[in-house]
Amino acid sequence: MPNSIFERAEYERRLAATRQAMARQGIDCLVVSEPANMFYLTGYDAWSFYTPQVLLVAQDEDAPFWMGRYMDMVSASDTTFLPPGNIHSYSDDYVQAADRHPMQRVAALMKEKGWGSKTLGVEMGAYYYTARIHAELQAALPSARFVDAELLVNWIRLKKSAAELAYMRQAGRIADRVVAAAVERAAPGVRECDVVAEIYKAQMAGCEEFGGVYVTSPPQFCAGPRIRTPHGLWTDERLQPDAPFNMEVAASRLHYHSPISRTVYLGVPPPAYLKLAGAVIDGLNATLDGVRPGMTCEQVEETWRKTIARHGFEKEARVGYSIGIGFPPTWGERTASLRAGDRTELEPGMAFHLMTGLWLENTGVTITQSFVVTDKGHEALTTYPRELIVKK
Amino acid sequence: MPNSIFERAEYERRLAATRQAMARQGIDCLVVSEPANMFYLTGYDAWSFYTPQVLLVAQDEDAPFWMGRYMDMVSASDTTFLPPGNIHSYSDDYVQAADRHPMQRVAALMKEKGWGSKTLGVEMGAYYYTARIHAELQAALPSARFVDAELLVNWIRLKKSAAELAYMRQAGRIADRVVAAAVERAAPGVRECDVVAEIYKAQMAGCEEFGGVYVTSPPQFCAGPRIRTPHGLWTDERLQPDAPFNMEVAASRLHYHSPISRTVYLGVPPPAYLKLAGAVIDGLNATLDGVRPGMTCEQVEETWRKTIARHGFEKEARVGYSIGIGFPPTWGERTASLRAGDRTELEPGMAFHLMTGLWLENTGVTITQSFVVTDKGHEALTTYPRELIVKK
Repeated sequence: MPNSIFERAEYERRLAATRQAMARQGIDCLVVSEPANMFYLTGYDAWSFYTPQVLLVAQDEDAPFWMGRYMDMVSASDTTFLPPGNIHSYSDDYVQAADRHPMQRVAALMKEKGWGSKTLGVEMGAYYYTARIHAELQAALPSARFVDAELLVNWIRLKKSAAELAYMRQAGRIADRVVAAAVERAAPGVRECDVVAEIYKAQMAGCEEFGGVYVTSPPQFCAGPRIRTPHGLWTDERLQPDAPFNMEVAASRLHYHSPISRTVYLGVPPPAYLKLAGAVIDGLNATLDGVRPGMTCEQVEETWRKTIARHGFEKEARVGYSIGIGFPPTWGERTASLRAGDRTELEPGMAFHLMTGLWLENTGVTITQSFVVTDKGHEALTTYPRELIVKK
Repeated sequence: MPNSIFERAEYERRLAATRQAMARQGIDCLVVSEPANMFYLTGYDAWSFYTPQVLLVAQDEDAPFWMGRYMDMVSASDTTFLPPGNIHSYSDDYVQAADRHPMQRVAALMKEKGWGSKTLGVEMGAYYYTARIHAELQAALPSARFVDAELLVNWIRLKKSAAELAYMRQAGRIADRVVAAAVERAAPGVRECDVVAEIYKAQMAGCEEFGGVYVTSPPQFCAGPRIRTPHGLWTDERLQPDAPFNMEVAASRLHYHSPISRTVYLGVPPPAYLKLAGAVIDGLNATLDGVRPGMTCEQVEETWRKTIARHGFEKEARVGYSIGIGFPPTWGERTASLRAGDRTELEPGMAFHLMTGLWLENTGVTITQSFVVTDKGHEALTTYPRELIVKK
């Protein structure tokens, strides 16, 4: 990875937008803990979020401050534009210790900077902002006012820049290869884990011009009795003839994700199954064709719901979500969802995974499309045909 | 994966030990949210922990209660022994919604069961127990008394059963193959991402008799300038001759992890580098040879520290941690650490990753060993030689 994968000006725009959103909530200092948000604002990139680490974005300081584990400081200086004076750490005896906590060191730095009795934004529902982290910060900063700023940065991430979209298209190109690799390996008698092995290999090997990095989530590879589960784990068992399997996979180019789901039928699908797949494909294509900037997320879902209803089906779950930068455990941005009640207006540059699938009592089909909203409609991020894949 | 990967009696022993630990803290109902703990107590297994889900273990109920997202109920019934009446869910409009939260549904179930004004244990620092989840639960159960029960189940997991150790040995066999696959592919001119692709493939393909599942963490594959970072991300760049790279990888057999780190030198290592590697290997072997049940974790670390000091080196970080079941973002159990101040006594059946490595200003070496404490000493979980790997 290059030292910085975006122009410095792009980071400055992101930080300016963040400070504007902070100002609207009266926040003096934002405590950013979501790995995707730390990466978005500074480029910080290391597998270090299993110990507490934060980025402090203050109204009265030009550059953010990073604080994490001592051994990860070198990653902070190698992957971000932050000046050395803005990179702080706690010593290793704070890691997973019973008698002390890293947030005590974070609080000490915040007091030193004069933010100890200010209004602090914290990402209450971010995956790695645990109840303990919050309690320790509150205990160490009794004079501060805490405001929930969950998703503050995530909402800014919703609309992608041209540079971000270029990475998402690259992720899409890898994702197409991932599906192709799985389809090539899959056959009756082949172990599920051996198909998954090819999926992973293709995710990382990428293309000749660029490779992939880790994806937020393992492949959802659901065969045999697990076809009826959306998130079941693969096994060592052998694929059976005359049966479908579902896979939901993604590729990640520098943490930008383009997901794709496909069902593969090993054999000749019976009419009832073709009918189910036909409904999903019809719903998917109608929904995609209807995408226009200015419409709302719930209108997108409405097209899907009405289309599958004509085929006699209904689906409880939302039919998609916004995508972009992803760190485990999900490539969803957790902001806009394609579902009833979500009135987020589509704008050019927003990206979604249209997660069209139907799961019945004993089977399921999933054929999906990642796309970007354009001036006139949509641009598909992957090119794999939107079909039930039949391998005889 | 079999429906249940352990005998029912083993789950009952785990639950009994959990209830005993709860009783010592006066806990009536334990709210388990750490995926590894949910898996340990019931076998529950799905990639669903990116939305709130809990296991409720109560003193006044025989079987735990599971509550999660509607679409994951089928995984709860397929992978656990829980009776249907103990599997509850919230509807999809609770997922990542601004106006409602899944913990409101969890709280409603708890009230119904009579636990709404009892003493509740919660895992304050568990990765997916966010500040928001805790706040929502507290708001919905104002009469309850909350007790921090972080690591309550983790400490029970520390000592493994014979059945668990069998899976860890299988993970070790896969891990040996993972290292071999990386070494085979690595050569000057090969892209880093292509070596990582082989690592992933080997992790999943496993052996003829059994395959692997996803590992909690991506390979730490640090080459070129990233050799000095412990947790940097790989790139698309080509490996250079006459240089080392570090890899920290693991294999996961049904979520049981055996990690291993090795340094590969592509070319002829200079004397200074051989000296560094020699110190690590000497420290590793001396430490392993000294392992005995009854000694403390800090005594294990002391052997390492004294041995490398004789070579003129010192290391700030802890030199290992307990391992077993792992879900992202770490394969460490977060209980016992091999470091000064940790007086946990080693007992047969405990497993550790002895994470011996040294990082200097511009380079690093890491050669490690996962092991189980036995009646007389230790059993290595991987068999790959404890050497600097030199590939000319």
